[in-house]
Amino acid sequence: MNIVIVGLGVIGGSFAKALKKAGYENVFGVDVDLETLKKAEKAKIIKKGCTTGKELFKKADLIILSIYPRLVVDFLNNNKNFFKKGTIITDTTGIKETLINDVLQIIPDDIDFIFGHPMAGREKKGIDFASEQVFNGANYIITPTGRNNIKNLELVENLILEIGFKRVKKLTSQKHDEIIAFTSQLPHVMAVALINSDEEGRDTGKFIGDSYRDLTRIANMNEDLWSELFLGNRDNLLKVIENFESEVNLVKEAIFNNDKNKLIEYFKKSSIRREALEK
Amino acid sequence: MNIVIVGLGVIGGSFAKALKKAGYENVFGVDVDLETLKKAEKAKIIKKGCTTGKELFKKADLIILSIYPRLVVDFLNNNKNFFKKGTIITDTTGIKETLINDVLQIIPDDIDFIFGHPMAGREKKGIDFASEQVFNGANYIITPTGRNNIKNLELVENLILEIGFKRVKKLTSQKHDEIIAFTSQLPHVMAVALINSDEEGRDTGKFIGDSYRDLTRIANMNEDLWSELFLGNRDNLLKVIENFESEVNLVKEAIFNNDKNKLIEYFKKSSIRREALEK
Repeated sequence: MNIVIVGLGVIGGSFAKALKKAGYENVFGVDVDLETLKKAEKAKIIKKGCTTGKELFKKADLIILSIYPRLVVDFLNNNKNFFKKGTIITDTTGIKETLINDVLQIIPDDIDFIFGHPMAGREKKGIDFASEQVFNGANYIITPTGRNNIKNLELVENLILEIGFKRVKKLTSQKHDEIIAFTSQLPHVMAVALINSDEEGRDTGKFIGDSYRDLTRIANMNEDLWSELFLGNRDNLLKVIENFESEVNLVKEAIFNNDKNKLIEYFKKSSIRREALEK
Repeated sequence: MNIVIVGLGVIGGSFAKALKKAGYENVFGVDVDLETLKKAEKAKIIKKGCTTGKELFKKADLIILSIYPRLVVDFLNNNKNFFKKGTIITDTTGIKETLINDVLQIIPDDIDFIFGHPMAGREKKGIDFASEQVFNGANYIITPTGRNNIKNLELVENLILEIGFKRVKKLTSQKHDEIIAFTSQLPHVMAVALINSDEEGRDTGKFIGDSYRDLTRIANMNEDLWSELFLGNRDNLLKVIENFESEVNLVKEAIFNNDKNKLIEYFKKSSIRREALEK
């Protein structure tokens, strides 16, 4: 199977590394950055790299898109005539509903586009931070469309498990965007708000424990990617922010009222939920 | 040096283990739970354990209190006549201002009480979850009072570094409580509010990445301890919650207004702060 990865950043680079480790040999890479391609070739995680995909796509059985959400549509418009018949394309975009609507209008009928989302990543950009470890034990969401071929869905699902993911779940695009707003985007809003609410010029790093360290880890954000993801999932994200604010408010009120019993009630609920989370 | 640890939970037990590893041999334990004492004796992390401290305190050079904040004052009232002259007592309580006022009214003049706070812990209770790893590389805050002997302060500080902590910082009790509200208590409020704002009955655990996992880890809380800590630091905590809410609101407004530039501005600020955090 010939695989072409488009975009060799943290996600694309990690795919290349994980595929190599799983024994895939015919993996090729497309990236706008020559330096990145050289690194990938030197590390032997791709057989060959190219700044455009035209030639590579003609022989590709599977194309993995690991580029910014807004670039997916442009990429398809620019390349749809180069794909061979029956090619599977899969993406790694963090929001789905609007993307799927756009993509289905562009791609030829003989191309099977399988929408996917690896629930894994890193706070750093670029191939230097790619690692097959990023995917190890992580969750993956596929949002099938009516046009997907079942055998192709199975092929992609198996490949995902083969390269280290723990679980593949299928969701509608609507459910995907709803739950991602909560499990991924809201934590990023919180991390940003926490660290930005610190007082200026205080030597905070000397007075932190693991809790602050963990909660702000993701405050180091790729601002272009995340502003796109937030605005592309606006309604869902606003809703979960508001639900979160209500819960903060409950805790705040209990503190204000010196209501120990209420606090204990909230903490018991959160403890039970946390313990049940990954069972 | 004879050391008595009062309360062999996660913190006290971790002290015992870390002291043993650092070569201290005359370490004794006091705990209300006989089972805990047996475990500690069996693991040879204490030389001897007792459910009351009366006999042990007579020979103690250093007493480490790792009990609930509200119990510290009771403990001192009940035991102040058993300490030998010159004994150093140190606590591990997460809030300081009110505690220090209370304690200074009780302890005899010939006892040196050094107020300390290890910025480390675990989400579980009890000696089974104690480990010297808990302290490894962590921060420690000491809040000296005018009554502390400088040599004793040095002794405690050196011991803290010896058992694995990375850094000891000195703060006034007021500054301590202010910064702890922000770096420790606010993250716990956030974690509780996040997980409690999840919709009931959703299979959330299947759709999470590291961000949600990290942000909710501390949502599994010892409810008695944390309700005490929150209410004991009420004004500082309410203030940092409000600052945090303001920042959440800025992000929310930018999303509502589709203001990508504002989002990018907030993300850049948070990224710069996160990168500077532990330099």
